[in-house]
Amino acid sequence: MESVDVPVALLGYGTVGSAVDRLLTEGADEIERATGHRLRVVRALVRDPARERSFRPGEAVLTTDFAAIRDDASIALVAEVTGGLEPTGTRVLELLRAGKPVVTANKQLVARRGAELFAAASEAGVQLRFEASVCAAIPVIKVLRESLVVSNVHRVLGIVNGTTNFMLTRMSEGAPYADALAEAQRLGYAEADPTEDVGGADAAAKMAILATVAFGSRVDFDEVDYEGIEGLTSAQVDAARRLALTPRLIGSATLVDGQVDVRVRASLVDARHPLASVTGAFNAVMLQGDAIREITLEGPGAGGMETASAVVADLVSIVGTAGTGFLHDDAAWRELERLPPGQLRSPFYLHLEVEDRPGVLARVTERLAAHELSVARLIQDQIAEGAVLHVVLHEAAEGDVLAALEEIGQLEESRGLPSALPVVSDRGVAGMGWA
Amino acid sequence: MESVDVPVALLGYGTVGSAVDRLLTEGADEIERATGHRLRVVRALVRDPARERSFRPGEAVLTTDFAAIRDDASIALVAEVTGGLEPTGTRVLELLRAGKPVVTANKQLVARRGAELFAAASEAGVQLRFEASVCAAIPVIKVLRESLVVSNVHRVLGIVNGTTNFMLTRMSEGAPYADALAEAQRLGYAEADPTEDVGGADAAAKMAILATVAFGSRVDFDEVDYEGIEGLTSAQVDAARRLALTPRLIGSATLVDGQVDVRVRASLVDARHPLASVTGAFNAVMLQGDAIREITLEGPGAGGMETASAVVADLVSIVGTAGTGFLHDDAAWRELERLPPGQLRSPFYLHLEVEDRPGVLARVTERLAAHELSVARLIQDQIAEGAVLHVVLHEAAEGDVLAALEEIGQLEESRGLPSALPVVSDRGVAGMGWA
Repeated sequence: MESVDVPVALLGYGTVGSAVDRLLTEGADEIERATGHRLRVVRALVRDPARERSFRPGEAVLTTDFAAIRDDASIALVAEVTGGLEPTGTRVLELLRAGKPVVTANKQLVARRGAELFAAASEAGVQLRFEASVCAAIPVIKVLRESLVVSNVHRVLGIVNGTTNFMLTRMSEGAPYADALAEAQRLGYAEADPTEDVGGADAAAKMAILATVAFGSRVDFDEVDYEGIEGLTSAQVDAARRLALTPRLIGSATLVDGQVDVRVRASLVDARHPLASVTGAFNAVMLQGDAIREITLEGPGAGGMETASAVVADLVSIVGTAGTGFLHDDAAWRELERLPPGQLRSPFYLHLEVEDRPGVLARVTERLAAHELSVARLIQDQIAEGAVLHVVLHEAAEGDVLAALEEIGQLEESRGLPSALPVVSDRGVAGMGWA
Repeated sequence: MESVDVPVALLGYGTVGSAVDRLLTEGADEIERATGHRLRVVRALVRDPARERSFRPGEAVLTTDFAAIRDDASIALVAEVTGGLEPTGTRVLELLRAGKPVVTANKQLVARRGAELFAAASEAGVQLRFEASVCAAIPVIKVLRESLVVSNVHRVLGIVNGTTNFMLTRMSEGAPYADALAEAQRLGYAEADPTEDVGGADAAAKMAILATVAFGSRVDFDEVDYEGIEGLTSAQVDAARRLALTPRLIGSATLVDGQVDVRVRASLVDARHPLASVTGAFNAVMLQGDAIREITLEGPGAGGMETASAVVADLVSIVGTAGTGFLHDDAAWRELERLPPGQLRSPFYLHLEVEDRPGVLARVTERLAAHELSVARLIQDQIAEGAVLHVVLHEAAEGDVLAALEEIGQLEESRGLPSALPVVSDRGVAGMGWA
């Protein structure tokens, strides 16, 4: 095959952008062997062309003029690696409307403005790819869209935030929350303001994207019911260890009888579940479907080179499918209803502090039974102020669990606020080896 | 996009073939949305058209006449799901030469006759895809070829045989080898003659394919240095548990300074390594590369529907890249030298039985030191006939370890044959928390 140069433009030339340029340059032969084309960065939009860069761009590549990219008909592909919603969103729209395929690493953009962007791409007949927007180099979008086309994926479970996974790994080893956060900040895993990570919003954006692709129905960021790990106590982490459970921030996207539920929760994972062994700043996504049972992909969920690797894979895939119509359309093709709040079912762990007096256990378990909640395991500990009950419930609807919890909280023997965490165990509590 | 029917033929209509037909039928809408085409099985080569099938093929689909597939110009794609080397190999060659793209699930064919098949495909300008030949539905071939184009993958570590992984999981729980095998046979994981699985040949064929794709250089089945799990003793399994190591049959393909090593060995895996948590009949493959650090894919490594899912993904990918030249060529494009025997480096576990008398430990460790082997951990146990030494060595070349082992075996205090197992721990022994 005759080798043809494909001119590529970048929006942004920071850590990821310069890594994309570097991978395209150093991997030019590999890409040519796969596609018959040499991809070359010819222009990159930056704010300050004079700034030092980790990879030296070609001559006259850096520009501050967006129109020089949008209006240059010779530019065949654009990778957006700036981040932020504006002006990035407007620029991506303009590029798509100008007939340029775009690759983006921007999870906020895809999760919040996906409908608008994909409509523009479809109208212009060009591809918009976004592998790097979720879990960096882990190719979960490609696998979902290309390998699992006929697999009826009905559940996606993910550890999609490396910062919190690092912190939870340290907390499981005994570190208090504040120490784990400080260490994550020192190592560059957490921002000075860690809210986006520890509050669950970062994971929620990624789960919105994964749910959209997995179920073929748009889920926006605003629709994801998310909580973070700030509420997780050392007492819960200690109890988890004794129960052979591992604390993890789990994003789940579930299709129940045609209704969608997408959420992010601090959860306790059965120690033998594949997601329990994902430690440190790694990410992992488990895809469950009819034809495949379950496939889990694990790897680094962040990093400049890792993210750039996914951007390059998308560029290569666009070149490799050009003109075939393959996956050129929006992944979302249908409208699905949302599962009503409280209906998602899972096993639960309950943490209850009560006064240590006769009859209290009877009153608590009576409240559970009134909501048809079945106890799989119970441990009662003595503490200075009374007793703590650690209860693991068999699978139940979240709404029933929360209702029982509220009633237990109102018992006169109750001290402090009772709390519940979902338990992740695909074999069910019965399969966890608990007598 | 206008929907166009793509006529597909199958070689074989057994468990996998009928599942392919079923997935193409039930997933026709999904495939049309992705590709703009409807794939339809129009002919399937079988020995006995009258046999009952788990999925009822369309009318007049079953045929005993191979030429009716090869010579029918309307058939656009063929999936080979019969297995075996002949007559399958000749048929696949004839189909490729007739200009038909072929998808095969046949690991023996790809691992033993890859060079010939891919040459025929290249010459005819058609694709030959083989995702289903390795680890069923786990999309490791696609990820290697499409997502990691520029990642310089230099190591592939895999649990690629579900039968032995099931057996080793049971052995770790205390079952003797014979019981684990009998249970695997009862559950349908192992054949009546389990040699192919327990002897390592099945894993070797898969590692040959993975190495070829990962390094872009043909590795034939005959070049894989393989051993199975038959030699693994209960004493070794017990020792592994005490050392926080997990016995696994590990296939490795390693690129060391431009030289290739591909092997399969019963190994002891650091309990915190991602491959240690892969239990039961599951498979997992870890890909290590420059841009990605490491990505691990885990899932069921066998099953009719799982294998069919990978076949369908390949059919879809061929349609989606038709005419672009993308990945149409042989994955192997260069010749690489082989790493000389004995040079692959890793940590090792040694199992030594010796007489319990003064000076024996000194004599053993002197032999290790003579080969510059450094001890990371040592446990000495008393047994009726003397003592057992469990030694974990820091990373060393296999050749040095085997040479030391031979000398130790010749010591007059030595009893029984000393044995060595490679240890898998990417953090090195020092990172394993061993003082």
